[in-house]
Amino acid sequence: MRTIEWKNGVVLTIDQTRLPDSLVYVKLRNSRDIASAIKTMKIRGAPLIGAAAAYGLALTAYNSKVSSKREFMKEMEDTVQILKGTRPTGMNLFWAVARIMSEVRKRRDLRVDMLRDLVVKEAGKIADEDVEINRRIGEHGSKLVSNGDAILTHCNAGALATVDYGTALGVIRSTWEQGKRIKVIATETRPRLQGARLTAYELQAMGVPFTLITDNMVGYVMSRGLVSLVITGADRIVKDAVVNKIGTYSIAVLAHEHKVPFYAAAPLSTFDLTHEAVDVTIEERPPEEVTRFGSKMIAPRGTKALNPAFDITPIKYVTGIICEKGVYAPQQLQELL
Amino acid sequence: MRTIEWKNGVVLTIDQTRLPDSLVYVKLRNSRDIASAIKTMKIRGAPLIGAAAAYGLALTAYNSKVSSKREFMKEMEDTVQILKGTRPTGMNLFWAVARIMSEVRKRRDLRVDMLRDLVVKEAGKIADEDVEINRRIGEHGSKLVSNGDAILTHCNAGALATVDYGTALGVIRSTWEQGKRIKVIATETRPRLQGARLTAYELQAMGVPFTLITDNMVGYVMSRGLVSLVITGADRIVKDAVVNKIGTYSIAVLAHEHKVPFYAAAPLSTFDLTHEAVDVTIEERPPEEVTRFGSKMIAPRGTKALNPAFDITPIKYVTGIICEKGVYAPQQLQELL
Repeated sequence: MRTIEWKNGVVLTIDQTRLPDSLVYVKLRNSRDIASAIKTMKIRGAPLIGAAAAYGLALTAYNSKVSSKREFMKEMEDTVQILKGTRPTGMNLFWAVARIMSEVRKRRDLRVDMLRDLVVKEAGKIADEDVEINRRIGEHGSKLVSNGDAILTHCNAGALATVDYGTALGVIRSTWEQGKRIKVIATETRPRLQGARLTAYELQAMGVPFTLITDNMVGYVMSRGLVSLVITGADRIVKDAVVNKIGTYSIAVLAHEHKVPFYAAAPLSTFDLTHEAVDVTIEERPPEEVTRFGSKMIAPRGTKALNPAFDITPIKYVTGIICEKGVYAPQQLQELL
Repeated sequence: MRTIEWKNGVVLTIDQTRLPDSLVYVKLRNSRDIASAIKTMKIRGAPLIGAAAAYGLALTAYNSKVSSKREFMKEMEDTVQILKGTRPTGMNLFWAVARIMSEVRKRRDLRVDMLRDLVVKEAGKIADEDVEINRRIGEHGSKLVSNGDAILTHCNAGALATVDYGTALGVIRSTWEQGKRIKVIATETRPRLQGARLTAYELQAMGVPFTLITDNMVGYVMSRGLVSLVITGADRIVKDAVVNKIGTYSIAVLAHEHKVPFYAAAPLSTFDLTHEAVDVTIEERPPEEVTRFGSKMIAPRGTKALNPAFDITPIKYVTGIICEKGVYAPQQLQELL
């Protein structure tokens, strides 16, 4: 099944905090369930969070008991606030919420029961489109990868970060399905270990040969000539920068120094080209994610830690951006506006 | 007490794999105990490994029952082989063993019982000198640090990595004792977490304010202007490079890109200036250190991982090297030969 699915007014998704130990599906019955799953990272990955937010609005609409449009719009707006309060950095959540609310506002002439259907349908469309868009990203990106290449990827930008197929891992999937012999180097991605837990899980399922490294081995593998290109996902792409999982910026600088091409793969719903890096809020997560490993304390009691969930890579370090429309040099991004 | 001590034919040391949870002292009674403690990283840190190797020879000499010099030399040579087989990258082990064996060979005129005393005494001298040398490193290095500076350090180059006082943390200790207000950013240093476990432990004991980060946050903190200078230890310094804990190279490249000065602090016993980077063997440790956390698997079963314990930083990324003779630009290293 897909990473997230709508089944008769219930949203079914994988609890990604339990992988790779257990594949556990959870049922989310209202927008608060969705918001909580996003906050606790049961649901993570910018495109998946976008689809989940759309389904959050769909759950509110589906379960709505009100008969006036004013009350319905109030319920929708309240849900928007709840969803927007989960994680501030990724663009797709804001994009999905805006898209659905714009549809609703456009069709204010409809009866409440029809508006409810419209929201549920639009959420489904967002999810369906995500899969199709990722396939196109995969196809475009696969042209950048040659037989024998070793691709370094960071965090998880796979089927688990999207509704299905993946962005960065979608490119790897598409390349692999074309029969090119490739290898992947996956960074473990502290503190939440999405690389070790999720990317390794997906690559193993695909059958792509891969090697796991700790985040501090990136310079080492590049200096040994073990990396042909880097492909990561993105949480937000602004005019002058790619915002992605903490560690991406360090990798991009190292790639630049080693003349290794650095690509970010993301759907247009991740793009926020009217803003710049200075406008972006970087989510700061609890320091305990750093000072503990699971429930076990690793640092002495009282240790202070930083925990920015994302960092900002200026476009000077970015070779290209892979989206459903093709591969763009970062200087060409304005063409997409 | 010191990190390692000789007490009537027994070597007492801290089991560093148990920190910061428990401060456990272990007794090592022969050179195989020493070798095993080095291999399993109960004892770690290049200068400490050097002192431990010296004590390994001292234990063999102290416990020797043979009466002929030939047999004594055989015992010593066998111990040398055992010790040299533990960890290949750090220089100090080879330096300490060579120093003791050179002393013994110089004094072959002595009776066996006097040779035994000589070895024990020489090992003690190596340990005593290490503390004194670190204090001098601290003094020289402290001149590089200004009031208000934030120092980023990697892994643990503290009292725990030496007999006492520390190299990189010795500089921090000396600066702090002079009353300069400084802050430290410590990288956790996967896979063995010496930063989170040991450096945090030492900084907390010193009272120096510090913040723990994951290894992939180095670019982030530098891009935000949070780092004034980097000081790390070193495991081997060759003509054209500094060999140190995996991750050091990535940090040095990032420092270079952000115009942050990068220093390595190490005693002359770490220097191997007749060799170059290409001559260095990088120890590859078990992949399980990466795929597991303690006993818990973090990656899916069957995941392959790289685990080089060290990396190589070419001197073009190194601002200076702090040793007991002063601070040297890497181009000046030949003066020390």
